[in-house]
Amino acid sequence: MVKYMVKDTVNITNNPVRILVVGCGAVGGFYGSRLAKAGAEVTTVNRSDYDIVAKNGIKIDSIDGNYHFKPHGVIQEVANYKYFPDYILVALKSLPQLDIASIIAPAVGPNTTIFLLQNGIDIEKNIAVKFFNNEIISGLAFICVNRTKPGKIIHLCHGKLVVGTYPKGNSSAVLKLAELFNKSNTPCRISDSIITERWRKLIWNAPFNPISVLTQTDTQQIMAQPGTVALVRSIMEEVCAVAASVGHILPSDVIDKNIADTEIMRPYKTSMLLDYEGNRPLEVEAILGNIIKTANKNGVLVPRLETIYEMLKLLVRNRA
Amino acid sequence: MVKYMVKDTVNITNNPVRILVVGCGAVGGFYGSRLAKAGAEVTTVNRSDYDIVAKNGIKIDSIDGNYHFKPHGVIQEVANYKYFPDYILVALKSLPQLDIASIIAPAVGPNTTIFLLQNGIDIEKNIAVKFFNNEIISGLAFICVNRTKPGKIIHLCHGKLVVGTYPKGNSSAVLKLAELFNKSNTPCRISDSIITERWRKLIWNAPFNPISVLTQTDTQQIMAQPGTVALVRSIMEEVCAVAASVGHILPSDVIDKNIADTEIMRPYKTSMLLDYEGNRPLEVEAILGNIIKTANKNGVLVPRLETIYEMLKLLVRNRA
Repeated sequence: MVKYMVKDTVNITNNPVRILVVGCGAVGGFYGSRLAKAGAEVTTVNRSDYDIVAKNGIKIDSIDGNYHFKPHGVIQEVANYKYFPDYILVALKSLPQLDIASIIAPAVGPNTTIFLLQNGIDIEKNIAVKFFNNEIISGLAFICVNRTKPGKIIHLCHGKLVVGTYPKGNSSAVLKLAELFNKSNTPCRISDSIITERWRKLIWNAPFNPISVLTQTDTQQIMAQPGTVALVRSIMEEVCAVAASVGHILPSDVIDKNIADTEIMRPYKTSMLLDYEGNRPLEVEAILGNIIKTANKNGVLVPRLETIYEMLKLLVRNRA
Repeated sequence: MVKYMVKDTVNITNNPVRILVVGCGAVGGFYGSRLAKAGAEVTTVNRSDYDIVAKNGIKIDSIDGNYHFKPHGVIQEVANYKYFPDYILVALKSLPQLDIASIIAPAVGPNTTIFLLQNGIDIEKNIAVKFFNNEIISGLAFICVNRTKPGKIIHLCHGKLVVGTYPKGNSSAVLKLAELFNKSNTPCRISDSIITERWRKLIWNAPFNPISVLTQTDTQQIMAQPGTVALVRSIMEEVCAVAASVGHILPSDVIDKNIADTEIMRPYKTSMLLDYEGNRPLEVEAILGNIIKTANKNGVLVPRLETIYEMLKLLVRNRA
C-alpha cells in the first residue's frame, strides 16, 4: 500500500491543470511545452541542465514554428514539487536500471494520473503494481525530436500522440489530456487498446532500431537492398506472432504498410542509433528483451529477434 | 577445354618441386616459406610489395623461431612465371570479385596441381570446372598469422594444415605436398573427405567471424555471456543442419568441442574483424552466403545465419 505524503492534494477547480514532467529530454520537453501552450501549469524536473532551464527555459525550433517554453516551475528533484499534480508525464527512457516508481513516488498523490510516454512493451507493469489506486495512461509519441544542447530542442518531423488507459479503455483523465494536446495543435488520438498500439509501434522499432545500431546505417541504407528488407519483414513477422500470442492481433497489412511508409521516409537515423552515437544507454530491454521474454513464455520462436538482441547487448557491453 | 600455353612442361626428376604461390599475404607467404624450407623451389607472385620482397624477401617472426624467407623467384604477374609449376598454391581471399581461374590460368600446365588454401565453402567449383584435367587439392589452414607490413609476417599461433583431393579422396600429389609440409615442421594432415573438413571449420567461422565484426568484439568478449554463447551454439546448429543436407554429417560433439576450445583460447580477434578494421574486403560469401544458398536449395531453415549475413552485407556496403 502506498502512503501518500502530506501535501496540498486538492486542485481547486478553477486552477489550471497541474502537470509535472519527469524526464525533461527532447520528448518530455516538447510535449510539456505543448501542454503549457494549452494552458496547463507545467513544472519540469531538470537535473543536469537545471541552471540553464531554470534561467532561460527551453528554446524549441519546431517545424510548426519556433517558440520558447518557460515552464511554470523548474525543479531539481521530484520531491521538491509542492503539490500532488493532476498528471505526472514520465518521459524517461525505459531502462532496467531506472526505478521509475521510486523516482516519481514523492509526487504521486491520490488523484494523480501517471502518464507514461515511453517506448517499448511491458513498461507499465511495475508502476501499475506500485500505484494500483492511480490511473495509468500509456502513451506513444510518433515524433522526431532531438535535444541538441541544454535548453534547446529541435523538432524535425511528426508529433502525433496515441494515448489510452492502461491496460485498456479510456477515461475522463485521458479525454482531458487529449483535449489539452489537441488544443495546442498536437494531434492526440485516443485508443481503447493502447497495448495493441504499443505492439503496433514495436513492429517498426524492433527491426529498425537494432539493425541501425549494429550496422551503423540510416533507414534509407537499410531499405536499399531487397535482402535487408526481407530481413526486416521477417523480424516484423516474429513481432506479430508474439503480439498475437498475448491477444494483440495486428491488422494483416501492418507489415506492408510499415515497409511502404519507411520507403518514402527521408533518410532517418533511429533514436537508438543516436543514443548509441551519443554514448547514452539504449532501450534494449523495452524494445527487444521484453518481446523475447513473452515469446519464450508462450512458445513462439523468434530466432531473428534473439540474434539481434544478443548481438546488441554484446555491442553495448563492450563499447568504448 | 583449356588450351595450355607452350612452356617447358617437363620437370626433370631430380629438379626440386616447383611451386608458384599466388596470393602472397600472410597465409601464402607463411606456407610458401615452409615449402621452401622443405627444399621446394618456391616462386611468389607479389604485386603491391614486389620491390621489397624481390630485394629482401620476407622476414617471418614465428613462434617456432624467427627466420628469413628468400623465394627462389619473385614475380609481379602470374604470366611472368617461366615454367608450369608442379603446384600452384592459391592463398588469395575467397571473394566473388576475384576470378581466380583467370588469375592462375597462365601458369596452369597439364601436370600442375592446383592447391586452394582458402576459407569458406564451395570455393573449388569454378576452378574444377575450368581446369577439369588438373588435380585440385583443397586445404584448410588453422593458424594465426598476420602480415604487418610489406616483407614482414608475424606467426602468432598454431599452423596446422588439413589437405585432401577435391572433391574427395587423396593422391600421390597430396601425399607429396603433405610430406613437404611435415618435413618443415608444419603439421599437415591428409583427409579423404576435405569438404567435410571445410564444413567442420565453418562451424566456428560462421558464427564468430560475423558476430565479431557486427559487435566489434574479440572471442573472449563473445564468450563472456551465456546468452551470446547460446546464440553461437544455435548458429553452429544451423551450419550442421546445412552440412548434413549435403551429406556431410559432423560428429555429434562438434559444437561442444568448438565451444570448449574457444573458452580456453586467448582473446582472439577473428581474421574477418582484422580485415574489417583494415578496411579490406571480407569473405562474406565464402563464409556465409554459400551456406545460405545451399540451405535454401535444400529447404533448411537458417534464420540466424540469414540475419547475420544480411546485416554484415549492410554494414560492409555502408562502411566509411
